[in-house]
Amino acid sequence: SRSIDLAVIPGDGIGQEVVAEGLKVLAAVLPQDVKLETREFDFGARRYHATGETLTDADLEQLKQHDAILLGAIGDPSVPSGVLERGFLLKLRFAFDHHVNLRPSKLLPGVATPLAGEPEIDFIVVREGTEGPYTGNGGTIRKGTEHEVATEVSVNTAYGVERVVRDAFARAQARPRKKLTLVHKNNVLTFAGHLWTNVFNKVAEEYPEVTTEYIHVDAATIYLVTQPERFDVIVTDNLFGDIITDLAAAVSGGIGVAASGNINPGREFPSMFEPVHGSAPDIAGQGKADPTATVLSVALLLRHLGYDAEAGRIEDAVSADLAERAALPARSTSEIGDALAVRVAG
Amino acid sequence: SRSIDLAVIPGDGIGQEVVAEGLKVLAAVLPQDVKLETREFDFGARRYHATGETLTDADLEQLKQHDAILLGAIGDPSVPSGVLERGFLLKLRFAFDHHVNLRPSKLLPGVATPLAGEPEIDFIVVREGTEGPYTGNGGTIRKGTEHEVATEVSVNTAYGVERVVRDAFARAQARPRKKLTLVHKNNVLTFAGHLWTNVFNKVAEEYPEVTTEYIHVDAATIYLVTQPERFDVIVTDNLFGDIITDLAAAVSGGIGVAASGNINPGREFPSMFEPVHGSAPDIAGQGKADPTATVLSVALLLRHLGYDAEAGRIEDAVSADLAERAALPARSTSEIGDALAVRVAG
Ligand SMILES: CC(C)[C@H](C(=O)O)[C@@H](O)C(=O)O
Ligand SMILES: CC(C)[C@H](C(=O)O)[C@@H](O)C(=O)O
Repeated sequence: SRSIDLAVIPGDGIGQEVVAEGLKVLAAVLPQDVKLETREFDFGARRYHATGETLTDADLEQLKQHDAILLGAIGDPSVPSGVLERGFLLKLRFAFDHHVNLRPSKLLPGVATPLAGEPEIDFIVVREGTEGPYTGNGGTIRKGTEHEVATEVSVNTAYGVERVVRDAFARAQARPRKKLTLVHKNNVLTFAGHLWTNVFNKVAEEYPEVTTEYIHVDAATIYLVTQPERFDVIVTDNLFGDIITDLAAAVSGGIGVAASGNINPGREFPSMFEPVHGSAPDIAGQGKADPTATVLSVALLLRHLGYDAEAGRIEDAVSADLAERAALPARSTSEIGDALAVRVAG
Repeated sequence: SRSIDLAVIPGDGIGQEVVAEGLKVLAAVLPQDVKLETREFDFGARRYHATGETLTDADLEQLKQHDAILLGAIGDPSVPSGVLERGFLLKLRFAFDHHVNLRPSKLLPGVATPLAGEPEIDFIVVREGTEGPYTGNGGTIRKGTEHEVATEVSVNTAYGVERVVRDAFARAQARPRKKLTLVHKNNVLTFAGHLWTNVFNKVAEEYPEVTTEYIHVDAATIYLVTQPERFDVIVTDNLFGDIITDLAAAVSGGIGVAASGNINPGREFPSMFEPVHGSAPDIAGQGKADPTATVLSVALLLRHLGYDAEAGRIEDAVSADLAERAALPARSTSEIGDALAVRVAG
């Protein structure tokens, strides 16, 4: 019989609330014969304040035992900027080699967008997750003086670029439009830019059916608001991916519905699924958070583990719920979760 | 008697056409007693193909003799990516220490925006121009092999950050809303991020009237499309500034109207003014380019040289022209230039 052994990290702020709904929908969608086991981990600001720890080797050892990880949100204003981001979120992505950071953007019917007209938005961003300016490479000299120098080193390897580019080509090949856009800034960041461009062009030869294009990151932000229908699959570096996926989320219904997967495609380590939004401490504990992004992250998780039909059921349920949402009075976090659980079970 | 000695670099593609209109409007707006001298420089793709040169020491020596530089656009698909960008545009910005890259965004009445509703957009971005990931620092080993490693080093100094942050505070102080937003990614790029944040907070103490806020670059792209009225003055690093100003241009009327100044505030070197758009080879030579961004760059140039009244006249003329544009049949590059020249003279 089949089973899913899930590590659950609710985390900070609204993380607790949205993860509860994600698990509710997960339980509702799984067939009877699939045994779901979950183990909760208390990472985040509370643990940091209590112990000074963010993510230890022992933690990683325990997380590693699971099939996948569902995360709510990590971060709190009481913790200095960077401590939990570098010490937990990025540490986990790097330790578990989550090199494919997958972020789909789809504007569903009935969903509000800040863009005028009726834009067609349906693309996925494959963001590199273990290199670029995110490596923590760099340093500071003469800190706090008028002669301070601080550097940040973007590290890019043929190995790291090629594997994520290959992943993106495979995803583009599997989609009806079969189009892949490389986003970088190769006219200024010429060292990294040439590596990305050359690898991209080389792998492209193996995918003659995939239409390719290259766009500078600055221009990409323009197209995301003026012609988002231009994009099908985008592959890009860690930092550019961070930036354009927030913009992509904004134009395709907001971060309330933006899901993401931090994926280790070879499954040497568990992959981690999380909403793109943060911990939103201002609305935490009030039942105001939208759990949809977490529920859609659960769908990505299921697809990663091979439960395609169940993933599709969740996505359909979300589409149906969003289509009706504008006509309904505002619902609480758990009311939205309940409604989605009913739909996927039905 | 007063005089302006201007270096003019039409450059590639539509650069030629838009600069001609910029000069037309400049000549029309200047009072009789101001002597305008211009000298044209043939930089760009043509020169590169003919001589292999992009910008020599002798060129810089000649440019240095002028009060300011007006540039159209540099770049052509016939030149490998990076050659003219690094070899000309960035070389000039660095050689003349253009550390304040000023990019205003104002959505004028009658101008189309991709955003729904009637957003209020009126902010300026002060982008650092001589540091960050733009220094060309970095390199490649094992190029072209499967073991290639390419790095890009973002270099940030207290000296460089403080002077641009000070410039931004002074600009914020001079505006009615007196608000300054620092945009960075200090939760991930912690070395550079802490330098920027600390300098920002330190200088803020000298400007008690200026309201300050900090926003991560990814979140900034969201706010630029969901609540652009939030921004008054933004100060940010070279790369983040590149990205968000293209997005800012897109939401505030498009790159057809986005002006920029590469400013050396101390006037040790001539400052350079250019439209944010590129050379647009696809429409070059057809009289289709919108010269408005160049004309607005001329206004920034005039303000930099102390001709505030004339700068204001140009901005008013552009506002009036844009307000009527939707009702008019499409006009050519020179027709728009003619109309603006008539308005500023009148
Ligand atoms: C919180 C931060 C470390 C993270 C990132 O920059 O990757 C977030 O912005 C994201 O996009 O998941
Ligand atoms: C052409 C390129 C070097 C330049 C930049 O990245 O600064 C351009 O995008 C700009 O914004 O002026």
